[in-house]
Amino acid sequence: MIRAHAALAATRPLEPWSYEPAPLGHDDVEIAISHCGVCHSDLHLIDDDWNRSSYPLVPGHEIVGLVTAAGAGSALSVGQRVGVGWQRSACLACDECLGGDENLCAKQQAVCVGHPGGFAERIRTDGRFVFPLPESLESATAAPLLCGGATVFAPLLRLGVDATWSVGVVGVGGLGHLALRFARAFGCEVTAFSSRPDKRAEAQRLGAHHVSSSSDVRELRKHARRFDLLLSTAPAKLDWVAFLETLRPNGVLCLVGAPQGLMSFPPSQLLGGQRSICGSDIGSRAAIRAMLDFAARHGIAADVERLPMAEANRAVERVRRNEARYRMVLEN
Amino acid sequence: MIRAHAALAATRPLEPWSYEPAPLGHDDVEIAISHCGVCHSDLHLIDDDWNRSSYPLVPGHEIVGLVTAAGAGSALSVGQRVGVGWQRSACLACDECLGGDENLCAKQQAVCVGHPGGFAERIRTDGRFVFPLPESLESATAAPLLCGGATVFAPLLRLGVDATWSVGVVGVGGLGHLALRFARAFGCEVTAFSSRPDKRAEAQRLGAHHVSSSSDVRELRKHARRFDLLLSTAPAKLDWVAFLETLRPNGVLCLVGAPQGLMSFPPSQLLGGQRSICGSDIGSRAAIRAMLDFAARHGIAADVERLPMAEANRAVERVRRNEARYRMVLEN
Repeated sequence: MIRAHAALAATRPLEPWSYEPAPLGHDDVEIAISHCGVCHSDLHLIDDDWNRSSYPLVPGHEIVGLVTAAGAGSALSVGQRVGVGWQRSACLACDECLGGDENLCAKQQAVCVGHPGGFAERIRTDGRFVFPLPESLESATAAPLLCGGATVFAPLLRLGVDATWSVGVVGVGGLGHLALRFARAFGCEVTAFSSRPDKRAEAQRLGAHHVSSSSDVRELRKHARRFDLLLSTAPAKLDWVAFLETLRPNGVLCLVGAPQGLMSFPPSQLLGGQRSICGSDIGSRAAIRAMLDFAARHGIAADVERLPMAEANRAVERVRRNEARYRMVLEN
Repeated sequence: MIRAHAALAATRPLEPWSYEPAPLGHDDVEIAISHCGVCHSDLHLIDDDWNRSSYPLVPGHEIVGLVTAAGAGSALSVGQRVGVGWQRSACLACDECLGGDENLCAKQQAVCVGHPGGFAERIRTDGRFVFPLPESLESATAAPLLCGGATVFAPLLRLGVDATWSVGVVGVGGLGHLALRFARAFGCEVTAFSSRPDKRAEAQRLGAHHVSSSSDVRELRKHARRFDLLLSTAPAKLDWVAFLETLRPNGVLCLVGAPQGLMSFPPSQLLGGQRSICGSDIGSRAAIRAMLDFAARHGIAADVERLPMAEANRAVERVRRNEARYRMVLEN
């Protein structure tokens, strides 16, 4: 039996809940979880915002722990310190998988959708989507790298960001604070956008050279034709028309947060200046490995608030109220 | 004096009109115009749709002719056969210009905005934006390459299209018919989208392997997750949500026509599958040169209907009624 914390129905508080794990498969590992981050996606799953939750639902997909058992086919060893992120598996046979984009596989499965996640003492999961952690990373502050870190790092890699780029990061939260650190470590000129004036000093501490309001259109206008990349981590709807004007010719607006509602703008905004808008969806396994190496080499980790696993509900509530600075991490 | 055809006010028919050209500048050439294509942009300028027209307005920016005079600084020679497209000049000093993206220069000037264009017997213009024509291209059918051809070729080059890509071309008109030919010559699998059933056979003749309705959502759904690139040449508003679903993971929707109104879609459509939307704005000088070489090597030119320059109004009217198959070209 594995002891976990589960929502028994949509929007319900978590309750202690145990389950019998499936037999350890050929490629599987079992991990004794030491830490698990709390991501906004966990709240969406608890609340069934995406109409894909099944209950009891054990959240948690920013997992760090030690391998306690490994299937015959696994390349991992008992005792290894590893991490698990959003993705649990993929078909590993389609064009996307063969091309190294298994995060885009149509048959991908998520760690805590249809399977119990990381708010638990242990987890059994496909070892091919489990990542050894570089030694210098601390478990608690590395946990949020597995999903949040991958989500903001992968587009920097994929879009070919280099040290001459001017990068704007919209939103200074769980994703945004890691994006600021990564973009700064990439050598970029970094501007943080936040709707909250109290985050100005924070954003500078996190690596921003400049800080700007994300909601004051007059302030946005000062950044006209400035950014090679705008990375939008904000779950809120933004003034897209104003933000598009801050892009340089050939500049890219990349969404890693999915705001509700429709995104609207005149197509001429993309034609003049050859701007583009793209989305990015977590990261491939190769990107996650590159991210962990990069984070270790540059000393990048999340700012976390720790709580015991037993206080999962308190952690969830802090995330719900946007009070976490910047990621809640549960500890066993 | 140069004899031309000008609109004396917005939306007026063209009338014979003469002007004294500016003295031939250091970098300028004078061209005796043999052919000039009629592009939809000419109609927008005549009608002042973009609030940037000045009258008398001489349209025409798909110009072919012979150099009759060259300034001391010009690399072109008297007697050379050349072409001129949309762009007349750029600062040649900003980041975009130095980077080879002079079509994105904030100080760029257009051939027939504030200067008399190609519906004329001659033109004087900056020789640095004048392109020698490969010998095998015929003047009349090459004229539309200078703007229409460049506009659809440049994104194929910039987006790194290769022969394994599946490319959808939306709209089978002046731009679309050239896009079909270029995409086919790139070795791609090519699908044409048109709202007009009578263009099905035409689209196949032009290089499409497959033809589909651009307005029937049920037909669009059959193309789910299919295209690496959708090149939208249509000036009409499309069902963006349905078209985005036809993109493969990492697929790109590139707009080269600027539909009126707002473009709207849920941001989640970009996140799932990492899709992107971009605009493309004519082409750089390097892209235009590469396009002309490519067109000559692959025997690609426009399907044109020819009319004498004196019948410019008749040509404009055919374009206005979308009757041209596929480009009207005026001849001196």
